[in-house]
Amino acid sequence: MTISPQIPPSRLAPTTQLSIDLGDRGYQIQIGCGLLDREDCVACGAKSSQALIVTNTTVAPLYAERLQRVLAAHHSRVDTIALPDGEVHKDWDTLNLIFDRLLGDGFDRKTVIYALGGGVIGDMTGFAAACYMRGVAYVQVPTTLLAQVDSSVGGKTAINHPAGKNMIGAFYQPLRVIADLDTLDTLPDREISAGLAEVIKYGPIADDDFLGWIEQHIDALRARDKSALAHAVRRSCEIKAWVVGQDERESGLRAILNFGHTFGHAIEAGLGFGTWLHGEAVGCGMVMAADLSVRCGLIDGAYAARIARLIERAGLPIRGPRLGASRYLDLMRIDKKSESGQIRFVLIDAPGRAGVHPADDALVAEVIDAHSV
Amino acid sequence: MTISPQIPPSRLAPTTQLSIDLGDRGYQIQIGCGLLDREDCVACGAKSSQALIVTNTTVAPLYAERLQRVLAAHHSRVDTIALPDGEVHKDWDTLNLIFDRLLGDGFDRKTVIYALGGGVIGDMTGFAAACYMRGVAYVQVPTTLLAQVDSSVGGKTAINHPAGKNMIGAFYQPLRVIADLDTLDTLPDREISAGLAEVIKYGPIADDDFLGWIEQHIDALRARDKSALAHAVRRSCEIKAWVVGQDERESGLRAILNFGHTFGHAIEAGLGFGTWLHGEAVGCGMVMAADLSVRCGLIDGAYAARIARLIERAGLPIRGPRLGASRYLDLMRIDKKSESGQIRFVLIDAPGRAGVHPADDALVAEVIDAHSV
Repeated sequence: MTISPQIPPSRLAPTTQLSIDLGDRGYQIQIGCGLLDREDCVACGAKSSQALIVTNTTVAPLYAERLQRVLAAHHSRVDTIALPDGEVHKDWDTLNLIFDRLLGDGFDRKTVIYALGGGVIGDMTGFAAACYMRGVAYVQVPTTLLAQVDSSVGGKTAINHPAGKNMIGAFYQPLRVIADLDTLDTLPDREISAGLAEVIKYGPIADDDFLGWIEQHIDALRARDKSALAHAVRRSCEIKAWVVGQDERESGLRAILNFGHTFGHAIEAGLGFGTWLHGEAVGCGMVMAADLSVRCGLIDGAYAARIARLIERAGLPIRGPRLGASRYLDLMRIDKKSESGQIRFVLIDAPGRAGVHPADDALVAEVIDAHSV
Repeated sequence: MTISPQIPPSRLAPTTQLSIDLGDRGYQIQIGCGLLDREDCVACGAKSSQALIVTNTTVAPLYAERLQRVLAAHHSRVDTIALPDGEVHKDWDTLNLIFDRLLGDGFDRKTVIYALGGGVIGDMTGFAAACYMRGVAYVQVPTTLLAQVDSSVGGKTAINHPAGKNMIGAFYQPLRVIADLDTLDTLPDREISAGLAEVIKYGPIADDDFLGWIEQHIDALRARDKSALAHAVRRSCEIKAWVVGQDERESGLRAILNFGHTFGHAIEAGLGFGTWLHGEAVGCGMVMAADLSVRCGLIDGAYAARIARLIERAGLPIRGPRLGASRYLDLMRIDKKSESGQIRFVLIDAPGRAGVHPADDALVAEVIDAHSV
């Protein structure tokens, strides 16, 4: 295994900070090991303000007590609410459990909410913070690889609606993001792979060198080598931060972060949310989007094959469920990127560069048929 | 009846525009008669974008078809959804009817939503626009005096939670506000009075001269004289716009706009939302807040009596329901302005000037006992 020069050879990566530049909504991402035990890393907001940790029933027994203990030194009061786990609960009823708790227990407008968990917890907690009393502060404490490299950065918050994923939400930036790599130790292998889908994504859309680095380190990443993970998380966040800094509210460039997501959302929605992990659907969706890029004449087949091979090595599915092309198309038409019923795909324009394109339904159907079983 | 010099003597006021300066979130308020029939006044957003008019079952038969006809020239498609009428429906279930319609009928991210109605419609529609696909454009078309002078300006959107009014919401600015004074012709007298409560509010908190003007024109305003209404709406929006421009997200100054609202919310919540109109509760709440200002030694009794007299002349209640002081206090403690259980009141510091103050529970209880029946 080769470690690239910029990565220290120790398995225990040092803490690094990354600044997200969004003017008065800017914030810091802290990446490293052992961060959850450090009050100086974790605690945010006004001294003696109230705090609520929002987590789920899977993560709570692992980390909630530790976080609550560390925060107790900073806040006048720290409570925890553990929501049911899973994408299927990313809905209004579950969101309302947070509001019921906040209002029932008298949490005021200076409250800081800590999102301790994966992408679902981060998205729901961020949206709760955006809406509670028209906005309170929140901190992202992502405990999955997917959340550390993607969903906790960029301020997208949301819940699902029966008619579509993430359809109800807000752009709302956290006070800080704390990515403690140690929390990845308790993650099932399947979720490490799902997180790697979003890491791989940054290569073809923004940084072809990074794609090469991931190819070299894919086994180390799956083995949870902390140095490799530290670089993967940092570089992913850097790329995402750069893109979000250009286009906070997704009026243009930011859409490229959805590479693989249009097909992926159709898989998730078609099977019922929660059947496949989000990262699994995105992994398979990237294979489809790469093939569509080839069929649209944008890249050659070898580059698409290279991406598919890496996705497979990450332990991700490269074939989608056979829902039928017309069902895929129907599901994709309600994607947020659609305009007047026209589906818009993120395609690879060249290695390391992506753009948003329409595509003929017939071509899309060919791709779906070629990559579903 | 005297008309002050700045008001033209015609009953038909000319259209005036007012700019709200909030940087890239700034917008125009148009005030006048016959605006609803003018495409140049009403239509907003990209040519050929989709549009949804959100209104209620009371307003729909009066104005929805007219608005839909005018908008049809600008938008590729205009639909209308009529929600059940009343504060009691300002909740998640009703909000979700908007989302169901938007998603069910394929409205995309470029959609413009028009809020046609009073404060409840404006607040809910604004919040739906803030959340739908993480934010689409919306236009306020307020058809009540209260909405024209208060709720449609400033970007506060929200729904109620069983534990408190406006607890779930967002700060989200409209593209434009269209205050057509002709829509006030169909308003019940009780709602004209409720709107006048918010007009009167701007006097003691920001403009003592305006208070004098209202005293001179209160009968003309109740008789719906268009010139008097035009000045009242314009001056109210000007003051509100100035305050909001200083403090968009209510971290300080903006709280003065809640004069009378802390007591008022307790009345509304204590009786059940919708029993009293919001403006009625605010009117009575201002009498209480003025008296508390006297008891805190900030103003003399004559000024409080002058405010109470004007509120009474506006056709508003000046005595609250006898819920008991401790119930009022409990209800006020969950007000958004509260911090760590300490209620914070907007009190008059001097004629035309207000600030946020704590107050002893005993003093507050005296006020409640003196002004409830």
